Amino acid sequence: MKKILGDPETLVDQSLAGFARAHAVHVRADTANRLCVRREAPVAGKVALISGGGSGHEPLHAGFVGAGMLDAAVLGDVFASPTTDQVIAAINATDSGAGVLLIIKNYTGDVINFRSAAGEAGEEGHEVQFVVVDDDVATRGGAGTGGRGTAATVFVEKIAGAIAERGAPLAEVAAVARAVVERSRSIGIALEACTTPMAGRPTFELGPDEIEFGVGIHGEAGIERRPHGDVSALAEQMLTTLLEGEPLASGPVIVLVNGFGATPAIELYLLFDEVARLLEARGFEIARSLVGDFVTSLDMAGASITLLALDEELLELWDAPVATATLNW
Amino acid sequence: MKKILGDPETLVDQSLAGFARAHAVHVRADTANRLCVRREAPVAGKVALISGGGSGHEPLHAGFVGAGMLDAAVLGDVFASPTTDQVIAAINATDSGAGVLLIIKNYTGDVINFRSAAGEAGEEGHEVQFVVVDDDVATRGGAGTGGRGTAATVFVEKIAGAIAERGAPLAEVAAVARAVVERSRSIGIALEACTTPMAGRPTFELGPDEIEFGVGIHGEAGIERRPHGDVSALAEQMLTTLLEGEPLASGPVIVLVNGFGATPAIELYLLFDEVARLLEARGFEIARSLVGDFVTSLDMAGASITLLALDEELLELWDAPVATATLNW
Repeated sequence: MKKILGDPETLVDQSLAGFARAHAVHVRADTANRLCVRREAPVAGKVALISGGGSGHEPLHAGFVGAGMLDAAVLGDVFASPTTDQVIAAINATDSGAGVLLIIKNYTGDVINFRSAAGEAGEEGHEVQFVVVDDDVATRGGAGTGGRGTAATVFVEKIAGAIAERGAPLAEVAAVARAVVERSRSIGIALEACTTPMAGRPTFELGPDEIEFGVGIHGEAGIERRPHGDVSALAEQMLTTLLEGEPLASGPVIVLVNGFGATPAIELYLLFDEVARLLEARGFEIARSLVGDFVTSLDMAGASITLLALDEELLELWDAPVATATLNW
Repeated sequence: MKKILGDPETLVDQSLAGFARAHAVHVRADTANRLCVRREAPVAGKVALISGGGSGHEPLHAGFVGAGMLDAAVLGDVFASPTTDQVIAAINATDSGAGVLLIIKNYTGDVINFRSAAGEAGEEGHEVQFVVVDDDVATRGGAGTGGRGTAATVFVEKIAGAIAERGAPLAEVAAVARAVVERSRSIGIALEACTTPMAGRPTFELGPDEIEFGVGIHGEAGIERRPHGDVSALAEQMLTTLLEGEPLASGPVIVLVNGFGATPAIELYLLFDEVARLLEARGFEIARSLVGDFVTSLDMAGASITLLALDEELLELWDAPVATATLNW
């Protein structure tokens, strides 16, 4: 897949500049530290929410910076963790004195760099807590580093952002974020791999009748190669895997059918329709839904399904006002 | 490019069902007539706005149905016009007695079917006007059917929708829609062609160092095959073509950098950054901007640039509240 590209070394910086220009009503760019910062940050009396990670997953995270969600996004190179110094710069740019919550996707580099930033900033007098998102059931259990952090990050950022906006103290914001992580799970599949700007070719090859099941969002292979069935078979397989591990409370859920980048909306809504019917048949109530590209893997074709088991408080926080480039209600 | 797909014959219907389920707060589906209808339509005293065309361009048009924009979207098969009867059904579903404006993209089938619906509905007592969007400069002039209707459709739907929402009479709504058409122009390029669900293979083949310049949104070839340069060269070529025809008033503009489906947001914001700098160097003021997938061509890789030369009224109408699945402010 060809790219719209100049110098690959400056792609992230220039794209951030373009993003900040397009969305100046919500954000500003700190180009020296590669941060996308909420326009009015630091917000007096409010716990600051910071997330980030490798680029290539847009609109995550910069698309979620703004009122009622993130105070800053920290941008690494494509599929590479940002540095500890960048995270510290984000803490300094956003902490009003009410403390900071770091929302970390569970990848070794991100966890190391965000945690060490939390430690260093703590020594400098900031109150910092963190939560690690590990919603991907494909890599939960086993001997690895646990579930990868994928599309449930959107739920964590939105819901923790809502309670922070109301002035809740850091301990409460962190507790809500952890509750969302515990109640979320995701599974993803790829029809075609992505092409990184550096490599210029797909990160893995799939035959015309194959899909990659349990795929991540960094161009890595999934847990299993499977035959490419129709949408009913696909939805059934994805939900079976999603629900077969630790039980998820039946009852109201938010469903996110997330496109990985190159899958047309018409296909995502088709998948959503299948998923919704299967979930209702299993006793779930679809309280809210979100369909589209939210956590992508560049131009990968495919989709993930994320469920969040709601309680009343989480639903109310999900519905609270938000004003970002991507979510706005 | 592989697809998430069941029976290709029911793709549009089931995807519409999924869309209506996900966005029930804004719309309802009329599955018998393949319509996506504003939830509260017909709205008493308000001119109804109807658009539509072939599927495969999502979020156009269903993503723009709701308060302050469209009253109904009429869905054809992928890249195929809806029928006259479908358009008449949309008129019957939305006309409150204040009349109807049809917003037609300039393609032979769409123009014939929407115009004949306007005629038939007129005989049945509906007051109907229409506007034809022909913003694509690649096919303006010459012996053909004129400029194709592409991404400026979003501007027409939003701005005419805003003045209709305020209760303006049909003649005024139609005049504003025509003013937007006259002040808009677009140019598109493809890096890779799209794959239709029926054909299962790309609609044209491009070499690794080629782009298709002046491409449309139906998988048809463009006006010229060109070498694939870097983002600066690309932006310069696109703007030169965009501005070399009939002069566009310099001054405030809305810029839309639109992805065709498979191009990552990081690349679109990179292109936007180049385009914005070039426009400012040429004396334009970027009053508003929109970057993302709005008028797609399934999974085509590439992008278009659309400019709308603003006046005060058009800017104010652009900024007016809107509540749809895709635009919401």
